[in-house]
Amino acid sequence: MRILVINPNTTQSMTATIADAATRAASCDTEILAVTSSMGPVSIEGYYDEVFAVPGLLLELAKAPMLGAKAAVIACFDDTGLDAARALADIPVIGICEAAVSATAFIAQRFTIVTTMERSRLPLEHLVHRYGMSARCNVRAADIPVLSLEEPGSNARERLREEISLALKQDRAEAIVLGCAGMADLTAELRSEFGVPVIDGVAAAVKQAEALVSMGLSTAKRGAYATPIAKPYRGLLEAFGPERLATVSADG
Amino acid sequence: MRILVINPNTTQSMTATIADAATRAASCDTEILAVTSSMGPVSIEGYYDEVFAVPGLLLELAKAPMLGAKAAVIACFDDTGLDAARALADIPVIGICEAAVSATAFIAQRFTIVTTMERSRLPLEHLVHRYGMSARCNVRAADIPVLSLEEPGSNARERLREEISLALKQDRAEAIVLGCAGMADLTAELRSEFGVPVIDGVAAAVKQAEALVSMGLSTAKRGAYATPIAKPYRGLLEAFGPERLATVSADG
Amino acid sequence: MRILVINPNTTQSMTATIADAATRAASCDTEILAVTSSMGPVSIEGYYDEVFAVPGLLLELAKAPMLGAKAAVIACFDDTGLDAARALADIPVIGICEAAVSATAFIAQRFTIVTTMERSRLPLEHLVHRYGMSARCNVRAADIPVLSLEEPGSNARERLREEISLALKQDRAEAIVLGCAGMADLTAELRSEFGVPVIDGVAAAVKQAEALVSMGLSTAKRGAYATPIAKPYRGLLEAFGPERLATVSADG
Amino acid sequence: MRILVINPNTTQSMTATIADAATRAASCDTEILAVTSSMGPVSIEGYYDEVFAVPGLLLELAKAPMLGAKAAVIACFDDTGLDAARALADIPVIGICEAAVSATAFIAQRFTIVTTMERSRLPLEHLVHRYGMSARCNVRAADIPVLSLEEPGSNARERLREEISLALKQDRAEAIVLGCAGMADLTAELRSEFGVPVIDGVAAAVKQAEALVSMGLSTAKRGAYATPIAKPYRGLLEAFGPERLATVSADG
Amino acid sequence: MRILVINPNTTQSMTATIADAATRAASCDTEILAVTSSMGPVSIEGYYDEVFAVPGLLLELAKAPMLGAKAAVIACFDDTGLDAARALADIPVIGICEAAVSATAFIAQRFTIVTTMERSRLPLEHLVHRYGMSARCNVRAADIPVLSLEEPGSNARERLREEISLALKQDRAEAIVLGCAGMADLTAELRSEFGVPVIDGVAAAVKQAEALVSMGLSTAKRGAYATPIAKPYRGLLEAFGPERLATVSADG
Amino acid sequence: MRILVINPNTTQSMTATIADAATRAASCDTEILAVTSSMGPVSIEGYYDEVFAVPGLLLELAKAPMLGAKAAVIACFDDTGLDAARALADIPVIGICEAAVSATAFIAQRFTIVTTMERSRLPLEHLVHRYGMSARCNVRAADIPVLSLEEPGSNARERLREEISLALKQDRAEAIVLGCAGMADLTAELRSEFGVPVIDGVAAAVKQAEALVSMGLSTAKRGAYATPIAKPYRGLLEAFGPERLATVSADG
Repeated sequence: MRILVINPNTTQSMTATIADAATRAASCDTEILAVTSSMGPVSIEGYYDEVFAVPGLLLELAKAPMLGAKAAVIACFDDTGLDAARALADIPVIGICEAAVSATAFIAQRFTIVTTMERSRLPLEHLVHRYGMSARCNVRAADIPVLSLEEPGSNARERLREEISLALKQDRAEAIVLGCAGMADLTAELRSEFGVPVIDGVAAAVKQAEALVSMGLSTAKRGAYATPIAKPYRGLLEAFGPERLATVSADG
Repeated sequence: MRILVINPNTTQSMTATIADAATRAASCDTEILAVTSSMGPVSIEGYYDEVFAVPGLLLELAKAPMLGAKAAVIACFDDTGLDAARALADIPVIGICEAAVSATAFIAQRFTIVTTMERSRLPLEHLVHRYGMSARCNVRAADIPVLSLEEPGSNARERLREEISLALKQDRAEAIVLGCAGMADLTAELRSEFGVPVIDGVAAAVKQAEALVSMGLSTAKRGAYATPIAKPYRGLLEAFGPERLATVSADG
Repeated sequence: MRILVINPNTTQSMTATIADAATRAASCDTEILAVTSSMGPVSIEGYYDEVFAVPGLLLELAKAPMLGAKAAVIACFDDTGLDAARALADIPVIGICEAAVSATAFIAQRFTIVTTMERSRLPLEHLVHRYGMSARCNVRAADIPVLSLEEPGSNARERLREEISLALKQDRAEAIVLGCAGMADLTAELRSEFGVPVIDGVAAAVKQAEALVSMGLSTAKRGAYATPIAKPYRGLLEAFGPERLATVSADG
Repeated sequence: MRILVINPNTTQSMTATIADAATRAASCDTEILAVTSSMGPVSIEGYYDEVFAVPGLLLELAKAPMLGAKAAVIACFDDTGLDAARALADIPVIGICEAAVSATAFIAQRFTIVTTMERSRLPLEHLVHRYGMSARCNVRAADIPVLSLEEPGSNARERLREEISLALKQDRAEAIVLGCAGMADLTAELRSEFGVPVIDGVAAAVKQAEALVSMGLSTAKRGAYATPIAKPYRGLLEAFGPERLATVSADG
Repeated sequence: MRILVINPNTTQSMTATIADAATRAASCDTEILAVTSSMGPVSIEGYYDEVFAVPGLLLELAKAPMLGAKAAVIACFDDTGLDAARALADIPVIGICEAAVSATAFIAQRFTIVTTMERSRLPLEHLVHRYGMSARCNVRAADIPVLSLEEPGSNARERLREEISLALKQDRAEAIVLGCAGMADLTAELRSEFGVPVIDGVAAAVKQAEALVSMGLSTAKRGAYATPIAKPYRGLLEAFGPERLATVSADG
Repeated sequence: MRILVINPNTTQSMTATIADAATRAASCDTEILAVTSSMGPVSIEGYYDEVFAVPGLLLELAKAPMLGAKAAVIACFDDTGLDAARALADIPVIGICEAAVSATAFIAQRFTIVTTMERSRLPLEHLVHRYGMSARCNVRAADIPVLSLEEPGSNARERLREEISLALKQDRAEAIVLGCAGMADLTAELRSEFGVPVIDGVAAAVKQAEALVSMGLSTAKRGAYATPIAKPYRGLLEAFGPERLATVSADG
């Protein structure tokens, strides 16, 4: 089984972190194909970046059939473009926030997401609400830029630890969800440090993708996720018209 | 006062319908500047079209300062790209669904939105929920393509009337909200036909925009709508990086 | 366009503050007609005062047709008697809490109402819930009597400022709503002091009234707001029977 | 124990029905003191009537200490003026809708209120929501004027039966709540006819009043129900100012 | 009227406390029959204990007809086995949490339950949510083992007092609900100490039971509480099969 | 990896159906160990049966360590005893309703559970609510006894098909969840017949169990799922006291 893991920001080094977490999570007979979006922001911090990450993401997703991928993972914790992706693809598409929150709900009644920037907190609260978990899940921001997680000298990881401590004490969180794909490499270390379950969305999404494929399930196509209607797209985005994009996957 | 009304789909004739409704709604000292997005789908039907309407929409919005616009209206009932638009702009940005639902709440306790396609129903239900109105507002789809509203021979308007009748009977709707910018020209006629308040989002958004400007209010910038962080954008979308797009408005 | 602004408490000086705010907010072709209720409490602080403010309010509202008013505003932040007023009147009736909350929702995701007395906090929380905004809007009380806002020597305005500071810090409010008509004159000053949007309900209600009238909309009459049924009223309140009150407007 | 049962409409014959139901429900050592409001509408149908029923209701309630009443019941299914009554009184005050819904929740998971007029349906839905029961309780209107329940030739009772049948079939109601004090005399007959629990709010409120008194409980006075602040009331309602009304009970 | 009060834990001394509170609450013509479960945990602290308290509880409940009981009370604040008990019995069955919360809602808008162990907090939050009171009622744990309430030397009662103080200050609770049957004897003392209504669930449940019986109401049997279907039960629990258990009540 | 799949009813033939579904769903390196409870009802239909299925279920779960199981599945759609099981076990415990609903949420926005008996509908609605999915998921009952699914001559499967058709038409369900472990063998057939995703909870739970184990996650133990406190259990259930039950797993 091949799973396409798409980093919707355009920072290659973050794709490496993601690929690594995905590969460690994957079953032995699963092949992880991690790709970086070819267009858009270098990191996704708030609503504006988010919308410009979607075209590149969908372009990569359109290649899934050609690549023989059986499922796709959107590796940004905002679950960027998830609805559009589900409408486009015939294979299951998993968002890492949705997967992390869903997995955590099986092992804890109250939990907290710790994300990077304050400006991502409200978008994540909306996701949590949409996923039916507002009564069980808080969202906290450590106030660190996404890319600072990769910078050697930054205090990003200390700030993250501080916020986890606050979540355990003030929210009485029973488990911690890491609210950014770029934190995936810290999972094991934080688990042993804090002695509570720490959930990384990349791993959770890979397992969820494997599960759906193995059950023979894919996105329902008779409602909100119906296949996009063929119609002209104009200007710079002409090539993204549903029928045009479809040829991407045919041609490769 | 100049208000920028952006049609986020690329169909010029629909912009004409919208411009007309906006102009009729505007105060005598308001100037309506209606523009058509230069890129993306010819109509917005469902999640996929929606995401590709956003870049063109934001490009037009970025020109607002240069144009001297004091507020902007997004003239698609999905409130396409509303959050990103609010983050980008320094002026108030109004979605027509939000404006229509908000205005109707002042005159009716229960009401129904009648939209075009079934695939738009769930996205609108999400909006209604987000705007705090799920307990008061149903959403119905007349099952008609957006552009069929403009086609002379189509039965789109009869289907719309049928669905309004059902809403009045089955939902006990006290008022009807027209769930597509392309229905704006039908407002007066449907009001007199059905004898209940019929609300068009374009008019509602123009009035809301005038109201906010006149009160000296604009989008709060200390939370989710903070100004986008300057950062590189890559590939086809390079020009949409926050600082690059800003120069659009400066240069004209 | 003439808008009737009714102060439902019987304190003339507060009507002056309200009239001033309403006039400043009104369009140049809108005439504000501000009146003080002729019966009931001198200030509305909690549930008990509220119910005794309604008869006088409705009496003034009944004069609207005679006065040629095209819309009415209830200028108390409890939205005193709003449902009964909508049933009575044929013109749109706007509550200042509803208008303030509704306008703020277009410019902020999280905001806080700062009101006067603790005993008004829960009634306002109920309103906020009814308007669908509980997830986005907190309510705080500065613990100051309504009329103290007008007393030269009182510390009411300092207490108000302290509570606004707390709202910005603890609630992460992106905008502040002033929770009493008697605070309307402080809007501009608090905006520049705190650097965030500060919303006054009187202004918001006037703009909302103008908007509905200009769109040709009025209260739906086929549900909860159906015109009151003619029937005998007895005793002290005999003159308030629906058909008796109607003659008020005819006679002047 | 003496319980004051106040009919907030001014129709004496309905007070008789209420008094009868209350007396049958009361424990042998409870004395029911049923009174009719001396001012306001002859029946309460919708928001407008409701507000004018409150002053007369509170006037009767103010006499409770003088009468030695240990609790009060508001015998209108809209729970007319309940919050103001709780602020005014030092004894427990029970609304019949609140009591009926609360009692039914102990014996059924899903139930339906059948009320009189369509215009009362939405106000009752608001009450049900406020009492935390929206997920469990539907509201239906039999479309019958309140006073027609007492008219010999009317078809009100047949319409009521039809609506109960629909509730059992379409809502899968497990129990029926009678949504008008004027239906109290039908309880036994409808129970045996439909074979399901049928709940009358007057009886439920009397039992709830007895229960609270017997437990030594009364309305909490440190929040929304704090005793009204002494202040001038003006005009026709001058006598209802909190300190003036208090003397009513002292003088008798 | 005879009411069966079942202590679902197996600690006789706690039954004594419960019996005492029940008897004090009962009307003079009510006889309290307090029994201790014959099997299961000595105290109920969290989900695990809870499920093992149910068989013994239902065994006692099955004896109700033989004992001539007209209603039953489950005297543990987790409302242990309440749904199953309602399905089994033909008489009304009352949980003490449900009764306490329901009674308190008549006298306070915001209140707090103070329970024993942290591990009981979330189960109680679920109950409060199910009873429709999450917006009005907080739950706090004093972090004291259930049986420590009875131990002479323990600091349980001081911890309880501290938590009540916090509830009044931080939650702005208007009333306090005692979240454990074993606290019933403290009610009067805490009321006079804190000067706010303090509610004990045992008393509230007895009054609710009396009320339902006196109104001639019992559990609805046409939905979720339909009488269990006769079927084989196997192994250790063979005797609990619905038809077998029924004979318990016949034989005595 | 060994997964313990517990059928909490005592019908061996149903365990066979469950074991078969579990095995087909399992990864090649997962071993399914399906066991039948040794005590309690032969089928679980409603609240009463449910509580008597829990002791036998927990007894089997206590053997998990001895059996080397890395996760456990509760194979009854009521998620019988799930909270107690999570408190007891150190390994992840998955309910099949929770797993089915959670998996379906990744592929459909609106879906319907079709269960067996009407008396199971409300308990399942409560679960759906608790899992945060009430706005997205309906529950229907086909009105068929659980064991009739296995009876050759019964019309159970036709009734199931009829209800699925209604769900697709009336609920606009995009996917169907089979609401009983005994329906697991019908999944493939119903999928091809109705052309929509059909989800079986047994398969979904096995995949979820594999996912959690593979991610190194287990139930959080610092809140509601803390390990039961050692204490005496009395009478028939003496052997279920936490420390006694623990020895079961040690001894085998």
